[in-house]
Amino acid sequence: MLIVKKFGGSSVANRERIFNVARRCIEDYKKGNDVIVVLSAMGDTTDELLELAQSINPNAPKRELDMLLTTGEQVSVALMAMAFHSYDVPAISLNAFQVRMHCTARYGNARFKRIDTERIQHELEARKIVIVTGFQGINKYDDYSTLGRGGSDTTAVALAAALHADKCEIYTDVDGVYTADPRIVKNARKIDEIIYDEMLELATSGAKVLHNRSVEMAKKYGVELVVRSSLTSEEGTVVKEVVKMEKMLITGVAADRNTVRISAIGVKDEPGIAFKIFNTLAKNNINVDIILQSVGRNGTKDISFTVSEEDLKEALAILEEKKEVLTIKELTYSTDVAKVSIVGAGMLSNPGVAAKMFESLFNSNININMISTSEIRITVLIDEKDTEKAMIAIHDGFGLND
Amino acid sequence: MLIVKKFGGSSVANRERIFNVARRCIEDYKKGNDVIVVLSAMGDTTDELLELAQSINPNAPKRELDMLLTTGEQVSVALMAMAFHSYDVPAISLNAFQVRMHCTARYGNARFKRIDTERIQHELEARKIVIVTGFQGINKYDDYSTLGRGGSDTTAVALAAALHADKCEIYTDVDGVYTADPRIVKNARKIDEIIYDEMLELATSGAKVLHNRSVEMAKKYGVELVVRSSLTSEEGTVVKEVVKMEKMLITGVAADRNTVRISAIGVKDEPGIAFKIFNTLAKNNINVDIILQSVGRNGTKDISFTVSEEDLKEALAILEEKKEVLTIKELTYSTDVAKVSIVGAGMLSNPGVAAKMFESLFNSNININMISTSEIRITVLIDEKDTEKAMIAIHDGFGLND
Repeated sequence: MLIVKKFGGSSVANRERIFNVARRCIEDYKKGNDVIVVLSAMGDTTDELLELAQSINPNAPKRELDMLLTTGEQVSVALMAMAFHSYDVPAISLNAFQVRMHCTARYGNARFKRIDTERIQHELEARKIVIVTGFQGINKYDDYSTLGRGGSDTTAVALAAALHADKCEIYTDVDGVYTADPRIVKNARKIDEIIYDEMLELATSGAKVLHNRSVEMAKKYGVELVVRSSLTSEEGTVVKEVVKMEKMLITGVAADRNTVRISAIGVKDEPGIAFKIFNTLAKNNINVDIILQSVGRNGTKDISFTVSEEDLKEALAILEEKKEVLTIKELTYSTDVAKVSIVGAGMLSNPGVAAKMFESLFNSNININMISTSEIRITVLIDEKDTEKAMIAIHDGFGLND
Repeated sequence: MLIVKKFGGSSVANRERIFNVARRCIEDYKKGNDVIVVLSAMGDTTDELLELAQSINPNAPKRELDMLLTTGEQVSVALMAMAFHSYDVPAISLNAFQVRMHCTARYGNARFKRIDTERIQHELEARKIVIVTGFQGINKYDDYSTLGRGGSDTTAVALAAALHADKCEIYTDVDGVYTADPRIVKNARKIDEIIYDEMLELATSGAKVLHNRSVEMAKKYGVELVVRSSLTSEEGTVVKEVVKMEKMLITGVAADRNTVRISAIGVKDEPGIAFKIFNTLAKNNINVDIILQSVGRNGTKDISFTVSEEDLKEALAILEEKKEVLTIKELTYSTDVAKVSIVGAGMLSNPGVAAKMFESLFNSNININMISTSEIRITVLIDEKDTEKAMIAIHDGFGLND
């Protein structure tokens, strides 16, 4: 069996944890399995490197930032190889150049295009544990590009897909996917199995346990994902195409505080204006989330939408610059908002799920600013201060703790 | 003009020094020159990484050590690129994979085989300052190999040779090559010009200002080397093939405390025994320096030689293992020894140089244990405690301060 195991930065933050990871991998290796280990940078390394860069040049070119950041994972994989060798287990560390993990040239936010398997296969055939740097690829200019936060999850899934691995295990500091963040909702329940689509909606809605691109890729290539704890031997959560029937309307609740609402006030009520606004943002790679259009005064309308906090400054600048063309009278924004979402394939065939969600919020006296839905997700924008109360109310309202 | 500039770890140890280096390079760039910058890892980074490795596995595989250590230079070059960009000067950092600096597979002590110039030339043509990681290459397995301590000097010279640079400047924390270490010999004098062979002998004899392999390579490819300070704008020392006549018998004095004497006692007085001993050591990549053979008792002889301290343990182990074959009765060693050398092309045509050196030592009451000479160098092995006294005595004896 070929197993890809991914460990995040906190799982390799110090000597003790590195050896803990090594021992877990050796267990599988000694059973005769081929093992690929994907690692993030140790502990807070990435943040420390970013700080260092900031001290040199607050507007450092992204290409050079990636050149800097990729050293973090290389340190992790080299040390991990040394740990394996101290147990007399053959192992080899490889970076993106050595594997040849081809990705797009978008520095800081690249996507994999293809991964060469020759070198890894060669090392696996020699019965070595292969340790690969997460988070990084090489682009068409023969430069490093990083995949953005959480990118190591995607590295693991991409390797599992390219090498037709039997399993891809994502190790984290929680022991699986929960019906809600257990730090907020005390009686949240661990989910044993979840389908790709639900996991994708949860990841996109703020559940930090898996990087959404990794789920997308796992779905596309049918990679069975397991989310489990690096500290315990609990079973974890399996993410796959079909799960055994559970009579749950919804699978989980997620919240995302990393969101801001922007409002374009007094926009001319003409066809095409909304299109122009969102097209302008899209061309600048700004993802727009919930959209609300309301009638304003004197033949105008107000268009509100949410973007992630990182994009706020750029979005405002772009709209400000094109204010006249876009017929915007005034731009306002609020950062004191949060998205709360419920996700569940069960809602497809069950009307009344939204009503139940709104009822739970109403009972807790929480005001809804905006609403957005997909086939298996309902998201509301509320005041940020109400986030925790909302999650608990919804979790209880749907009886998710049973 | 194409200039290669190499800066060591202390020259890029912090933000201020990084900007200092950037400004010096921009000066040359703005005059219309093409500039390649070779950097070592920042400050004590390499030592810190070695400590980290030690904490994981004291016998870490050298391949993984090199994978770890090469991150140090990558951090330096990325930060330096950011510094250039903060002055709006286009610059790009490149590691050994990107340049394709091919070297031998001897981890921790590799040698360059060839360097591809395409990528660097492409970037220079785009009028970018090109910043290259020192100390590292890639080997035939597509893995990193490092060049050993001081290897960044060799990187700079190798790049200068491959790209036919007009000049290769080695920046360091002293302002040139001195007639002796100025920390020890207070009236030591800076040398304006020195020929390759003398520089090579000085570097091999313990003068730390240049890595001896870099001088070897500079001589082979006729690269004009300049050694100068990264902190002042002093002229420095030029290393080249022919220098203007100076009526100096000797050019400099150097000392090397990193040496140990090993004695093989009671070896059979038969032809071929000495050859076998040194052949065994050579096969294990142990460099033997001074050799002294003396007649022992009962048809035996004693063979003494020096090796560097790093090799002591291994040399003893190898000889111990083959003691019988090599007819060695007893192995002894001493670490309390040092080599002091004088170097000068002038001694070729001047008899009596050795006598003058020995006289200076005699006058200072310093005992000579062993002697070794090349055409332009005389080295004596003395007690380590006498090192400084010997250097001063010789420096004065030859009137090197004039």
